[in-house]
Amino acid sequence: MGKTVSHKLIEDHLVDGRMEPGAEIALRVDHTLTQDATGTLVMQELEALGLDRAQTEVSVQYVDHNLLQTDEKNAEDHAYLRSACRRYGIWYSKAGNGVSHPTHMQRFGVPGKSMVGSDSHTPASGAMGMLAIGVGGLEAATAIAGEPVYLRMPEIWGVRLTGELPPWTSAKDIILEMLRRHSVKAGLNRIIEYYGPGLSTLSAMDRHVIANMGTELGATTTVFPSDAAVYEFMRSEGREDDYQEILADPDATYDIEEEIDLSTIEPLIAKPSSPDNVVPVQEVAGTDVGQVVIGSSANPGLRDFAIAAAMMRGRQAHDSVSFDVNPTSREILADLTRMGGTFDLISAGARIHQAGCMGCIGMGQAPAVGHNSLRTFPRNFPGRSGTREDAVWLCSPETAAASALTGVITDPRELMDELGQEYPDLPLPERATVNTDMLVPPLPPEEARGERLVKGPNISTLPDFPPLPSNVEAPVLLKVGDNLSTDEISPAGARALPYRSNVPQLAEFTFDQVDPTYPARAKECADTGHLVVGGDNYGQGSSREHAAITPRYLGLKAVIAKSFARIHWQNLANFGILALEFTDPADYDRIDQGDVLVLENLRDEFARSPELTVHNRTKGEDYRVHHRLSRRQMDAVLAGGRIPLLARS
Amino acid sequence: MGKTVSHKLIEDHLVDGRMEPGAEIALRVDHTLTQDATGTLVMQELEALGLDRAQTEVSVQYVDHNLLQTDEKNAEDHAYLRSACRRYGIWYSKAGNGVSHPTHMQRFGVPGKSMVGSDSHTPASGAMGMLAIGVGGLEAATAIAGEPVYLRMPEIWGVRLTGELPPWTSAKDIILEMLRRHSVKAGLNRIIEYYGPGLSTLSAMDRHVIANMGTELGATTTVFPSDAAVYEFMRSEGREDDYQEILADPDATYDIEEEIDLSTIEPLIAKPSSPDNVVPVQEVAGTDVGQVVIGSSANPGLRDFAIAAAMMRGRQAHDSVSFDVNPTSREILADLTRMGGTFDLISAGARIHQAGCMGCIGMGQAPAVGHNSLRTFPRNFPGRSGTREDAVWLCSPETAAASALTGVITDPRELMDELGQEYPDLPLPERATVNTDMLVPPLPPEEARGERLVKGPNISTLPDFPPLPSNVEAPVLLKVGDNLSTDEISPAGARALPYRSNVPQLAEFTFDQVDPTYPARAKECADTGHLVVGGDNYGQGSSREHAAITPRYLGLKAVIAKSFARIHWQNLANFGILALEFTDPADYDRIDQGDVLVLENLRDEFARSPELTVHNRTKGEDYRVHHRLSRRQMDAVLAGGRIPLLARS
Repeated sequence: MGKTVSHKLIEDHLVDGRMEPGAEIALRVDHTLTQDATGTLVMQELEALGLDRAQTEVSVQYVDHNLLQTDEKNAEDHAYLRSACRRYGIWYSKAGNGVSHPTHMQRFGVPGKSMVGSDSHTPASGAMGMLAIGVGGLEAATAIAGEPVYLRMPEIWGVRLTGELPPWTSAKDIILEMLRRHSVKAGLNRIIEYYGPGLSTLSAMDRHVIANMGTELGATTTVFPSDAAVYEFMRSEGREDDYQEILADPDATYDIEEEIDLSTIEPLIAKPSSPDNVVPVQEVAGTDVGQVVIGSSANPGLRDFAIAAAMMRGRQAHDSVSFDVNPTSREILADLTRMGGTFDLISAGARIHQAGCMGCIGMGQAPAVGHNSLRTFPRNFPGRSGTREDAVWLCSPETAAASALTGVITDPRELMDELGQEYPDLPLPERATVNTDMLVPPLPPEEARGERLVKGPNISTLPDFPPLPSNVEAPVLLKVGDNLSTDEISPAGARALPYRSNVPQLAEFTFDQVDPTYPARAKECADTGHLVVGGDNYGQGSSREHAAITPRYLGLKAVIAKSFARIHWQNLANFGILALEFTDPADYDRIDQGDVLVLENLRDEFARSPELTVHNRTKGEDYRVHHRLSRRQMDAVLAGGRIPLLARS
Repeated sequence: MGKTVSHKLIEDHLVDGRMEPGAEIALRVDHTLTQDATGTLVMQELEALGLDRAQTEVSVQYVDHNLLQTDEKNAEDHAYLRSACRRYGIWYSKAGNGVSHPTHMQRFGVPGKSMVGSDSHTPASGAMGMLAIGVGGLEAATAIAGEPVYLRMPEIWGVRLTGELPPWTSAKDIILEMLRRHSVKAGLNRIIEYYGPGLSTLSAMDRHVIANMGTELGATTTVFPSDAAVYEFMRSEGREDDYQEILADPDATYDIEEEIDLSTIEPLIAKPSSPDNVVPVQEVAGTDVGQVVIGSSANPGLRDFAIAAAMMRGRQAHDSVSFDVNPTSREILADLTRMGGTFDLISAGARIHQAGCMGCIGMGQAPAVGHNSLRTFPRNFPGRSGTREDAVWLCSPETAAASALTGVITDPRELMDELGQEYPDLPLPERATVNTDMLVPPLPPEEARGERLVKGPNISTLPDFPPLPSNVEAPVLLKVGDNLSTDEISPAGARALPYRSNVPQLAEFTFDQVDPTYPARAKECADTGHLVVGGDNYGQGSSREHAAITPRYLGLKAVIAKSFARIHWQNLANFGILALEFTDPADYDRIDQGDVLVLENLRDEFARSPELTVHNRTKGEDYRVHHRLSRRQMDAVLAGGRIPLLARS
């Protein structure tokens, strides 16, 4: 039977387990990617693990999240990360060099390699035939230390592309079509693999758009073949020698099959405040717009900026619109500048920001309440922009630029027709402006061993986490609904992000979006600990392990939910929090916030069977729940988390 | 007797008073300039005054300070300012259009006009023969309403320039030489007027550097003649029709005379943490540098960025340096981009930020503690960068770029000699990229009257201020030293700035740099009110009236100091706080923090004589103090401030 690209990549890295959907597999890790918002904890974990030197082929620490530096904390994080890279033999990508995902593809990506990254959009490198998986920081740390990464063997979801995109639509509309058809959890425990004749019209960076936002479908990762488009990309980066072709066998079969005829795609937009809240742009055309933002890792390509520049050339953003441009990387900004696009955007009234993640992680350009913000970003979870009652819409650069020109949501086909402009053939350079000087290479081992970690006053050490108690009798401190994101558990944004290296401080922001009283109430019941009850897809979104560490620090013992998002579920196990699922989802409705739940003989019961009984002391009733932990994960949970477990061995 | 340019400008605008140094004069105001950090209060004041329409020739509201938008507050300020401009007939310069000072020169400046601005660097427009004075927000508001501006007739300090600057030095080194020779209060109640043969080598934007930082000398303003260099500037902006020549008479005499031979200037640098802490760069060469920032209103010219770009071309900022570029205006960024300089800077590793004030007002790029930051900014007061224990140095773009290349403080002459690069002849464009689309013109009066103010939840109204009581018996809540800046009274920076439109919230930051317990202690003695004792030059620096309003809101009745900085002294009177000076400065040493002071029969005494007696009840002794208030200002203080006074009339 023919193999898919996904099967080939997994087979090539399999060190343990069977490739049967649902079975735990262990994969060798070639590359790791960390960014600054998750990376400072990763470095603290390497310290706790006593690492001498990174064991991977390539590990890169990017600085792309916390760039605003409104006080000394972010700059101190950067200094700490630089020193840790020097100590552990890790590449250091300086602030301003760009967002990790496109930069990694440009400078390090190699078809056929595996990668884990402590950022949920790590799958973006799947655009070039890599197996790239977002993980919690601790998995990134253990991968750097040479450990394999463990996951459930996913199903392979094949999406066959046919036809060609019509003018004024682009890759973003394809992934929005996927989100329109499915939902933010359709990809759970699945790899989405694109194939078919429609692929030939999509460049590697177009595929990046789709692979990046596969995360919004909840997928384990997204995979594209390594073909002529990838060769073309690597050639333009001066790295064609690293190219190898990786195609699915002609008779490959997929666990799930789907087809998209690209010629039927129209401009789409995700309404506030979920990426799957997708409608045709025409359906909401005419809605007032206060802000338009172009950029982020979800539209990182030079093409994405160049098309906006071509549409804005000689025109002006509407008086009522703040038009913000967020370059993705130094290289792309340099190329855009060289080809005149930066000048066009500045002339059209753009505010040009430094290369990095910016508003995509709430680090700048928060909109005013009551003003719609159109962004080419991957996510629009509530409050993620930094504004508590925000209204963020997600769309293509074409739709964003058209709306910037008119001040209302605008279908780019209609506007550009009206303006008499044909869809432009963009004069993209044959060769990128390659400049690696902001990528600091690892030191030689002997020199590295002499390096000291530079720890500013805001860099904490990891707290101690005691083992799981045998009996838990604790209140449900919070009951939340479906699709609760890690943004809602531990927010990004300029208030909280600077404390990413300081667990006790950051804990004060836990569940801030949902219930700001949570941290204080958790401290009140520190003796018993507490529980959280969740709906479906608990912990979707960003990979941040802070969403496990800070509730744990505040005394969270277990989360009982209808289902969990994959990365957060792993993070809970890594930090010794029990993730339990209702056997009968209807029991969710029987529990109220404040109910006291009892789990008895937990250590024995839990190890004996995946099914447990939870007693509701307040209501006097029992529920059946189960966990999906592997033996390996159970050991970690019993020990109080993976760090105490590894520290003991 | 021949007249100076300053005398001509004053004479031309005099509506009351005699032109004798020290006498109060009233001047007609042609232009006003407000920026967003002070402007939201100005608009609240226009509201309180019941204004129908701006009475000036030109009033412009710039948005350049609070651009980071880490939550909704700044964006809401912008929406409020836009609506107030539409209502009151004021030009609105959108966020991203640039810093007020160079932008005003480029688009609105006219030689011979008078201007007040609610920003302490307003004198920058003196570079083109304007009489431009920094004032508190309330003076800007009353000027917009058609009132004259009142000030003490200053002395004229003539500085004759001869010779020509050597290579690798520039205008910044001239003003640093002035600060080296004198101090941050040498210019008090003086206008600095430059003249002489050396002027011909300085462009209008070079003169802007010098006029801008005349504020750091404490000067009322700085004035340059309007000559060929100004004509050249206006021609390049397409505005030569607005040009008129204004020169000092050949036999003009100055109250103070000074001379600088430009050929003797060498690269200079102000050490932390005062602009007059100036030494030759060579004296501190080799000191480690963690950050270099090019830009701000103190080096706003295209030349300033172009010289840095020429020095960095084909080279790379040192690994240990964060190299930040802060474009001053959209026009300058567009020109720099057109001539290739932006590409050179990006390639050299620069982080390009949006056009605005940025780190100069603590709104981004705060350095890590223990890392030296070299900036081409006007000020380095402690903590102004956003980092509490910062180490900020001020220098020219040449010194900044040289130090960015080496990672240590570097004399540009030596480095560039070593690199074999001659001082470049910069290919600046003949014509600027003029684009006025981010400047929104005033609405016609009828339309304006129909406009409603857009007030987000963070826009307060002004608090009520009761009249001055007859007897004050209150503790000295704080005793501070010399040269206390308004940054230390009411901080800028990303924490506080977003509350600039919300007096009760902002009050919580009062004296935060000096004593964070002040607001709480002030509230404890709200019944009696409280006093502050200061040294020389109390309230130097930024013009922000918040430094008067927030202590007043917290109960401050009087400040007793050795002397006051001019703008803050006016702001105190405007908001009903008594500014008293020790008749014998030695009495300063006799008072301790916590002493209870008594001022009796204040309303009568104060109106009867400028001299008063203060009784120290704790120590049982008396001090003589005096005020320098005009009749007009005394009325305002008695009424509780100028707004209650105007509201009553």
